Amino acid sequence: MVLKIGVIGVGMIGQDHIRRCIEVLNGCEIVAASDINLEHVKAVLKKYKINGKAYTEGLDVISSPDVDAIIVASSGPSHEKYVLAAIEAGKPVFCEKPLAVTAEGCQRIVEAEMKAGKRLVQVGFMRSFDSCYRKLKEMLNTRELGEPLVVKCVHHNSEVGDSYTTDMGITDSMVHEFDIMRWLLDDDYETIQVVSPRITKYAHTGVQDPQLVLLRTKKGILITIDLFVNCQYGYDIRCDVVCEDGIAYMPSPLQVQTRTKGKFGEHVNTDWRERFIVAYDIELQSFIDNAKNNIVMGPSAWDGFIASKTAAAGMKALESGEIVSVNLPQCPSFYKK
Amino acid sequence: MVLKIGVIGVGMIGQDHIRRCIEVLNGCEIVAASDINLEHVKAVLKKYKINGKAYTEGLDVISSPDVDAIIVASSGPSHEKYVLAAIEAGKPVFCEKPLAVTAEGCQRIVEAEMKAGKRLVQVGFMRSFDSCYRKLKEMLNTRELGEPLVVKCVHHNSEVGDSYTTDMGITDSMVHEFDIMRWLLDDDYETIQVVSPRITKYAHTGVQDPQLVLLRTKKGILITIDLFVNCQYGYDIRCDVVCEDGIAYMPSPLQVQTRTKGKFGEHVNTDWRERFIVAYDIELQSFIDNAKNNIVMGPSAWDGFIASKTAAAGMKALESGEIVSVNLPQCPSFYKK
Amino acid sequence: MVLKIGVIGVGMIGQDHIRRCIEVLNGCEIVAASDINLEHVKAVLKKYKINGKAYTEGLDVISSPDVDAIIVASSGPSHEKYVLAAIEAGKPVFCEKPLAVTAEGCQRIVEAEMKAGKRLVQVGFMRSFDSCYRKLKEMLNTRELGEPLVVKCVHHNSEVGDSYTTDMGITDSMVHEFDIMRWLLDDDYETIQVVSPRITKYAHTGVQDPQLVLLRTKKGILITIDLFVNCQYGYDIRCDVVCEDGIAYMPSPLQVQTRTKGKFGEHVNTDWRERFIVAYDIELQSFIDNAKNNIVMGPSAWDGFIASKTAAAGMKALESGEIVSVNLPQCPSFYKK
Amino acid sequence: MVLKIGVIGVGMIGQDHIRRCIEVLNGCEIVAASDINLEHVKAVLKKYKINGKAYTEGLDVISSPDVDAIIVASSGPSHEKYVLAAIEAGKPVFCEKPLAVTAEGCQRIVEAEMKAGKRLVQVGFMRSFDSCYRKLKEMLNTRELGEPLVVKCVHHNSEVGDSYTTDMGITDSMVHEFDIMRWLLDDDYETIQVVSPRITKYAHTGVQDPQLVLLRTKKGILITIDLFVNCQYGYDIRCDVVCEDGIAYMPSPLQVQTRTKGKFGEHVNTDWRERFIVAYDIELQSFIDNAKNNIVMGPSAWDGFIASKTAAAGMKALESGEIVSVNLPQCPSFYKK
Ligand SMILES: [Mg+2]
Ligand SMILES: [Mg+2]
Ligand SMILES: [Mg+2]
Ligand SMILES: [Mg+2]
Repeated sequence: MVLKIGVIGVGMIGQDHIRRCIEVLNGCEIVAASDINLEHVKAVLKKYKINGKAYTEGLDVISSPDVDAIIVASSGPSHEKYVLAAIEAGKPVFCEKPLAVTAEGCQRIVEAEMKAGKRLVQVGFMRSFDSCYRKLKEMLNTRELGEPLVVKCVHHNSEVGDSYTTDMGITDSMVHEFDIMRWLLDDDYETIQVVSPRITKYAHTGVQDPQLVLLRTKKGILITIDLFVNCQYGYDIRCDVVCEDGIAYMPSPLQVQTRTKGKFGEHVNTDWRERFIVAYDIELQSFIDNAKNNIVMGPSAWDGFIASKTAAAGMKALESGEIVSVNLPQCPSFYKK
Repeated sequence: MVLKIGVIGVGMIGQDHIRRCIEVLNGCEIVAASDINLEHVKAVLKKYKINGKAYTEGLDVISSPDVDAIIVASSGPSHEKYVLAAIEAGKPVFCEKPLAVTAEGCQRIVEAEMKAGKRLVQVGFMRSFDSCYRKLKEMLNTRELGEPLVVKCVHHNSEVGDSYTTDMGITDSMVHEFDIMRWLLDDDYETIQVVSPRITKYAHTGVQDPQLVLLRTKKGILITIDLFVNCQYGYDIRCDVVCEDGIAYMPSPLQVQTRTKGKFGEHVNTDWRERFIVAYDIELQSFIDNAKNNIVMGPSAWDGFIASKTAAAGMKALESGEIVSVNLPQCPSFYKK
Repeated sequence: MVLKIGVIGVGMIGQDHIRRCIEVLNGCEIVAASDINLEHVKAVLKKYKINGKAYTEGLDVISSPDVDAIIVASSGPSHEKYVLAAIEAGKPVFCEKPLAVTAEGCQRIVEAEMKAGKRLVQVGFMRSFDSCYRKLKEMLNTRELGEPLVVKCVHHNSEVGDSYTTDMGITDSMVHEFDIMRWLLDDDYETIQVVSPRITKYAHTGVQDPQLVLLRTKKGILITIDLFVNCQYGYDIRCDVVCEDGIAYMPSPLQVQTRTKGKFGEHVNTDWRERFIVAYDIELQSFIDNAKNNIVMGPSAWDGFIASKTAAAGMKALESGEIVSVNLPQCPSFYKK
Repeated sequence: MVLKIGVIGVGMIGQDHIRRCIEVLNGCEIVAASDINLEHVKAVLKKYKINGKAYTEGLDVISSPDVDAIIVASSGPSHEKYVLAAIEAGKPVFCEKPLAVTAEGCQRIVEAEMKAGKRLVQVGFMRSFDSCYRKLKEMLNTRELGEPLVVKCVHHNSEVGDSYTTDMGITDSMVHEFDIMRWLLDDDYETIQVVSPRITKYAHTGVQDPQLVLLRTKKGILITIDLFVNCQYGYDIRCDVVCEDGIAYMPSPLQVQTRTKGKFGEHVNTDWRERFIVAYDIELQSFIDNAKNNIVMGPSAWDGFIASKTAAAGMKALESGEIVSVNLPQCPSFYKK
């Protein structure tokens, strides 16, 4: 059996998912796609030699009887509508982040999915499919090193355009850490604080870069996130976990080390695409494999909701400079893992 | 379309391929299997819930009209017969190493395949499917570091049983390097020398361990292979390539580094299964994906033949202590890449 | 010329300095020593075959006409008295930390030294003599990496006895970072915050371990200190400096890497003695070499005073959980470097 | 007491030793120096503000009653004469390598020194004073890793001038490994083989670069030396010791690691001066400290003799391409350590 997928939104990310389905993944085909610009949808389908239907309205993709499962890759504000419609239609939906642009929107999705009585939504947080994070979690799960006490994250990015704001550091960049730390530690947040260090000369005017976030979990674990989006040297995601009996360091992706031109060393990833390209493949293959068995796993609507709530608390912490309560609701048993 | 596979030999390796096809790989099913012990075949098929035919004769697997492609995982001396029959039947065949137990046997396969007019044989050298070797080759292919001059291989294994002989160091262990170095360097061998260092106390009586082999290629590249099959500390495959403008070091597989119990470090692979498990998966998936398109790629019968010829020269070098000519025949255009 | 040294206090640290002068360093001899227990002084002098004077009163060591320079290694509360007396006598004095037990005591020493019109006091902060810190500072001073923005310190210690309190984390352990960060960054502190993560099961009752301190400097640099005094795995001092154009990582001391028993890695230092033993040697040799030329360099009374002020602010931050002003006075030109 | 040193030869190396004695080391002064060019000696003495005697004849330095100990830094062919004269005068002599330009010359020095009845000669092999080699030897001496079986040396140099010949690879470059391997392993050589890999495009016409040397010791240990004197990337000395229970890797000198400009890595030493500068200091300080106590330690005339004999066998091996016997004489008890 082959999973028939409809794609809503064929901008950069949507097209990338189409390419992935066609060229990299197994067990799926693209049967429909939509975009506000119909000619654009047709051009994309043609480019990948796809004999599928082209729509201007995403809801038509969802209601198309050919379509088994949905990928939502349209603009952020439209996500909620499409995800709710997919739930309504009872079709598995893979939704790029954000799940919704507000915590309230996420909550509406959570409620709709619970009402539907089964998981239908996978949110596009790809890090839990990355082999570096997985290796780290495996090690922690052995409990060889005892309980985690302090986790130090690094999230460095070469440079950002001038549309990037200080807020986006929290809502777009660190939201990945907000999600993956819950996955890694099986824990939730109690408080968040945002610290603003000396600003790099490479930051655009008015942008606070770097930023340091401190999260405290219900178990008392302290998480620091060192975000630096104009770090110049490359894209660099790291995670050190200080435990009672030792420290675990997340590995970096495989690189050939060299000695050349007076240096011993290795390449640092250039950007997030290069760093996580395999994770994106595994993430979507996993969605496909599960959808064929009529199940949905991976990051849930609840995870998207919590990430959104945490980011909202982070925004308050940024504005106030204070330690702010995250106030997360209890996880319903429906979403317990 | 699903590739229907017949498996000849359901010992440890054959069973492992069956497990792989069932649990890990895509696009294939097992439809037949053989073993001298029929009850054993039936038990294996049952274990994996396979509704396939059980034979005592491998040739029946090959001639079965259900079977699209063959995996040969029987004992070494039977490989030649089965591969020749598969060629005769025009069916793609994946043959575990050795392709044949003599260079002459390999040559007969090469000749049969050339006569058949298309590649049908993939030999089970898995290293070219390993991401560490691939990363290294990519780096070398950029020619950023200029031409390779000296390659230093390490092939260390924790320990071997008492059936392991000095000869097997060359014919079973280093044969992997004999193959992969040709792939890495696009080169062939001219001479081989075997050097016998001080013997570890862990070697069984009469076994020379470690051994150092020196290969000289047609381009003059010097390859050293430091083989040590009772190294105690783990399974460790490394490869440093000294080039005109720098050195490239093959990466080791991803490991979580830790600081614990007075040490900073990481796990060394325990054995070849752990080290190359993913490469085995990719190797066979690649065979399957290609066979479905009616082509065969990867290590060829010619590669198996050359590895065998090189090992034979290595045996002469071991016995004589001299630098021995490898005398490789010219590669027919049929096998040129 | 040989520098004639008098040692006040022959407990563990005093004896260690005597051993160092006798067995390791050049250009000095021990001519007098004191301790409340006269028999103990005599025994120590005898043990090292020193033909020197034994006193019960440290002031007698200082006033002895034989003595060119003083080492103060007595109990903390007596330091101020002896350092003031050495200044009064115009003799160079090396004082183990703390310079005085209160910031006010340190200030009295600063004032006395300024009145004396020349530097006479070196405080026993040894880290600036450590080759790892020196290498790091050299690198930063090239400004190849631009301005420092965030500095992440690790100060991990295997275990502490049950007399160790939470306060000592700040006043005894992190005081080393308080000093060395000013040296590394040529900067002073504005605020300090103490964060209390989940407590390790290895902490004695009532002790907060680990602790995380955040310091903000006048230039806006953010310094984090991850202190963990029951980390079990060894003694580990690290420092990552995130700059505008890259990150510098302080090296660890030279260790032989090994592959053995299933691990690739290296020894982590066992304790601070092992980690800093060479720095202690260089620190005191530097004092001796300078004293022979009638000068005093290295960590000054002012540095001791500022470390003490910072620790006092740290104590307030620990108690309140708030971000506390450090309120450092302006450095007098007398102490400018 | 201060050791009064006379320096024979004030070329680059002689001047460097003078600078070292004046600016870096303790317990010595320069009281005389010689050079064929008297004005040059005077200029050098003046440059370092040395009030010493200037001679044109090195023998006058040796016979000067002011002089306690000699440094021989003149041209190679004159070393033997001066060392013999220093022995005759009963004065400790530090002789830069080579001890003499022939094995016979070295032997004459050995005989003279044995006749004198006490060690007077230290040869300028500095590597045993290098902390990286010392750390490695300490580790091996614990026997934690069992007996050494194979040692893999790397001796890479950025580039050489056009006066550098293939022979010099053996007599000037690898002679350092010939000496240090005996020190490291407490062993002597039986055979030597020279292998000539593909030549780098950076080698001057007629020069074989890289070269690989294989030494076999009396205990059967196999030593490989990978010499590459136009490696372009820097100066790089490494040593991996494969033992029965694991591998020890000699550390490289401390470097600050960085992430910058798309690379994670560290500086490789530029040349041998930078790599071994501290070893040169310790080497000569050790000579001085010992000479003040009327003893001589460190690399002996015997060591210089054996290095010379090994290099001579290496030359034969280079010419013949064969495995050549080194034929080392038994070490007299006079030189046993
Ligand atoms: Mg995503
Ligand atoms: Mg295989
Ligand atoms: Mg100290
Ligand atoms: Mg030398």
